Amino acid sequence: MLGATRTDTNSLHVTARLNEIGIAVRAKAVVGDSTDDLASILGSALSRSDLIVLTGGLGPTDDDVTRDAVARVLGRPLHEDAAILERLRARFAARGLDMPPLNRRQAMVPENAEVLHNPHGTAPGLWIEHAGHILVLLPGPPGELKPMVDVLIRERLVLRAEGMRLLTRIVRVAGRTESHVEMAAQPLYERWREKSRSIEVTILAAPGTIDLHLTVRVRDVALGAAVLDAAVGDLREVFAEDLYSANGQPMEEVLGGMLREGRHTIAVAESCTGGLLSSRLTDVPGSSVYLDRAVVAYSNEAKIAWLGVGADLIAAHGAVSEPVAEAMAAGIRARADTTIGVAVTGIAGPGGGTPEKPVGTVAIAVEGPWGRSVRTRRFSGHREQVKWHASSAAMDDVRRAILRAGRAG
Amino acid sequence: MLGATRTDTNSLHVTARLNEIGIAVRAKAVVGDSTDDLASILGSALSRSDLIVLTGGLGPTDDDVTRDAVARVLGRPLHEDAAILERLRARFAARGLDMPPLNRRQAMVPENAEVLHNPHGTAPGLWIEHAGHILVLLPGPPGELKPMVDVLIRERLVLRAEGMRLLTRIVRVAGRTESHVEMAAQPLYERWREKSRSIEVTILAAPGTIDLHLTVRVRDVALGAAVLDAAVGDLREVFAEDLYSANGQPMEEVLGGMLREGRHTIAVAESCTGGLLSSRLTDVPGSSVYLDRAVVAYSNEAKIAWLGVGADLIAAHGAVSEPVAEAMAAGIRARADTTIGVAVTGIAGPGGGTPEKPVGTVAIAVEGPWGRSVRTRRFSGHREQVKWHASSAAMDDVRRAILRAGRAG
Repeated sequence: MLGATRTDTNSLHVTARLNEIGIAVRAKAVVGDSTDDLASILGSALSRSDLIVLTGGLGPTDDDVTRDAVARVLGRPLHEDAAILERLRARFAARGLDMPPLNRRQAMVPENAEVLHNPHGTAPGLWIEHAGHILVLLPGPPGELKPMVDVLIRERLVLRAEGMRLLTRIVRVAGRTESHVEMAAQPLYERWREKSRSIEVTILAAPGTIDLHLTVRVRDVALGAAVLDAAVGDLREVFAEDLYSANGQPMEEVLGGMLREGRHTIAVAESCTGGLLSSRLTDVPGSSVYLDRAVVAYSNEAKIAWLGVGADLIAAHGAVSEPVAEAMAAGIRARADTTIGVAVTGIAGPGGGTPEKPVGTVAIAVEGPWGRSVRTRRFSGHREQVKWHASSAAMDDVRRAILRAGRAG
Repeated sequence: MLGATRTDTNSLHVTARLNEIGIAVRAKAVVGDSTDDLASILGSALSRSDLIVLTGGLGPTDDDVTRDAVARVLGRPLHEDAAILERLRARFAARGLDMPPLNRRQAMVPENAEVLHNPHGTAPGLWIEHAGHILVLLPGPPGELKPMVDVLIRERLVLRAEGMRLLTRIVRVAGRTESHVEMAAQPLYERWREKSRSIEVTILAAPGTIDLHLTVRVRDVALGAAVLDAAVGDLREVFAEDLYSANGQPMEEVLGGMLREGRHTIAVAESCTGGLLSSRLTDVPGSSVYLDRAVVAYSNEAKIAWLGVGADLIAAHGAVSEPVAEAMAAGIRARADTTIGVAVTGIAGPGGGTPEKPVGTVAIAVEGPWGRSVRTRRFSGHREQVKWHASSAAMDDVRRAILRAGRAG
C-alpha cells in the first residue's frame, strides 16, 4: 500500500543520469510491497523497455519482495549466493556482530544474475540480462543507490547507449504567466521545425518562474549545443529581460552573480515574507560577500525602531503600502550602509485582508545608488505561496533595477 | 519521455483522499506522452485494480494522449460529445474569444463515458465503468484536479468503499536518528501484535524529524481511533519529550501553539540560517502574535551593532561559538523586549570550515525568563541541509526549554 506523504527522489536521480548518456526514460512506477503487483508491473515494463531499473525492496525483511517478483517474472529460481553470504557475515563481524538470520535472505539471487557491489550497505545490487532486456536491481536508500548508479552509468550503461546524447537547456522566465510564455514561444517552435531542428520543448510552471526545457538527442555534441544555443538566442529576443536564466540557474544564483559582479552589497527589510527572502539569498554559497544583514520587522514597533519608518507614515498609509515599503528600503540601506536596500511588506494571510488590500497584496521597494522604485502586486494562494511569490518578485525587482541602472550608466 | 526535475504531487493528493475513505493505493505510474506506453501500463493496471485514476493528458494538443489510450485499451471508439463542445465554445465566448480548432479534441470521449464537470478549466473529467473496473480521467493542473477529486470522493467513491476507513496517526520525533527510533519502537510492534492489533507502521526519516505513520483499516471508527490512541500512548512512554507531535503537526506549529499558550513572545537572531528560522516560524498563520522581529546578522559588524555582541567576545572565541550564540540570544531578547530570545550561529558551508570547527558546526542558544542554555551540534549535508537542520534544532531547543521551565515551575 502506498502512502500519501512520500515524494520520490530516487527516480529523478536515475532519470537525470540516464538522460545524460542519451537514454530516454519512458515510464516509471511506484508499487507497494506486494509480489503480485510488482510482478504484474514488471511484466508490463518488459514488453516496452530495453532497460528496467528497480530500486528498493532488497532488504532482509518480509516486505522486501523485489527478488521474488523478478524471479517469478523471469522464470529463474532464486538460489543462495555463497559470496554474498560471506560478505554479509564479514560486514556484521567487522562491527563485532553475528549476522541476524533474517539477513540471509539478502544472499538469495535469481540464476545467472551478476552481483553489483554496494559499498554503503548490506543489500548488493543485481544485473540481469534476459531475452534482450537488462534488469538492474538497486537498493532503495539514496546514499547507497546514488554511488551505485554512478558506477553503473560509467562502467556499463554508457557503452550501450550507442553514442547518443541528450542535451538540455533550461531557460527561465520571470514576470509572465505560463500562457503568455507559451503564446510568445509558439512562433519559434514553427521556425525551428522549418529549419528541421528537432528540439523538444516542455514548459513547466513553478511558483515564481516559468521554465522552458529544450532537449535535443544527438550523436554530435557540438552540433547539438549549437542548435540549442541558437534556440536560446531566439528566446532571448522574444523575452528580453524577462528571461533571467539560460542554464537552469535559480533566481537566487542569478541575482547573487550580478551583485558579486557589480560589487554590490545588499541589506533586506522584510515583513510578510518573514525571513524567506533573506534565507533564499543566503542559500547561495558565498552570499556573505554581498549580503550584510536582514531585518524581519513584523511589528510596527520594529519597523519604527529598527528601520526608522515614521509612525505617522504608517498611520497615514498603513504598514502595507508603497510609502512604508520605500521607507523600509531606505532605512535598511542607510543603517546597514549597503549599496542596495530591498524591502517587502504585505499580507500573507489567511487573516489581515481588507477589501482595499486583500490577502496577497504585497509592496516591494528597491533603493540603490541609482534611486528608488516601488511596486505593488497581488499574489494568489495560501500563506506559504504568497511568501514564496513575494520573495521571488523581490529578487526579480532587484535584478531588473541593476539591469536598468547598467543600461543607463 | 520523462524529465528529471519534476516531482509528482497530484498522486500524493489523490492517494491521501482515497486513503481517508479506506481505499488503499497499490501502485502508481508516471508515463511519458506516448499512447503505446500509456495503453500498456493501463492494461496492466486493469489486471490488478478495481479503480484506476488517470491524471493529465486531457488537453487540446497532440501530446495529450490519455483519451486515445483509454479508447484503445477498452475497445471503445471515441466520439464527439456535443454537450462538451458547447460548453467549450461558451467558455471561450465568455472571454470574447473564438474556440481554437485544436480544442475540439477535448470534446472527444470514449463511448458510454460519463462527463465530470471541471469548473476551473477546459478539460472535463471522465468516469468510465468497464467490466467491474472504474476508470477516472482527471485533468493534470493541480488547481483543476484537486476540487474535482474532492467532489468525486464525496459524491461517488465514498459509496463504493464498503464502509471501511483507513485511520492514520503521524507521530513525530526530534533529536534521534532513524535507527534509534526503529530500535526503540521495535518491542512495541510485538506487544501490539500480541494484542492482535493490526497496526501498520512505516518509519520515514526526513531532515530534522523522524516520523512514524501508524495505520489501521477498520469498519468501526471509534474502535480504530482507540487502538491508535493506545499505540500513541505507548510511543509517548518510549520517546518522552523527544516525541513532539502525535497528529502530524510540524515543529513550526507545535512550537507556535506552545508560545501562544504560554503567552510568550520571541525574537530571533540568526547567522548561518540566514532567515530560515524566522521564515519557518512565520509560516504559521497568526505567528505575528508571538514573533516580534528577527535579525539576520551575517557580518560581525551586524552582530556588534544590532545585537550588542562584544567585539572582544568574537575575537576571543570566533563568531561561531557558544559565548557568541549566548550573547546574540541575550542581545535580541533585550532589544526586542520579548520573553524569549533564540540565536543560531554556525558554518553552513561549503566554505568556512576549519579542523576544530568543520562545516556543519552550529551553536544554538535560548534565553528566557527561566535562564539561558546553549548547545553545539555538528550537522552533515550541503548548505541548504545544514540550514534546515539548524533551524529545526533551534525550534526544538526552544520547545524543550519551555517544557523544562513548565515542569520546574
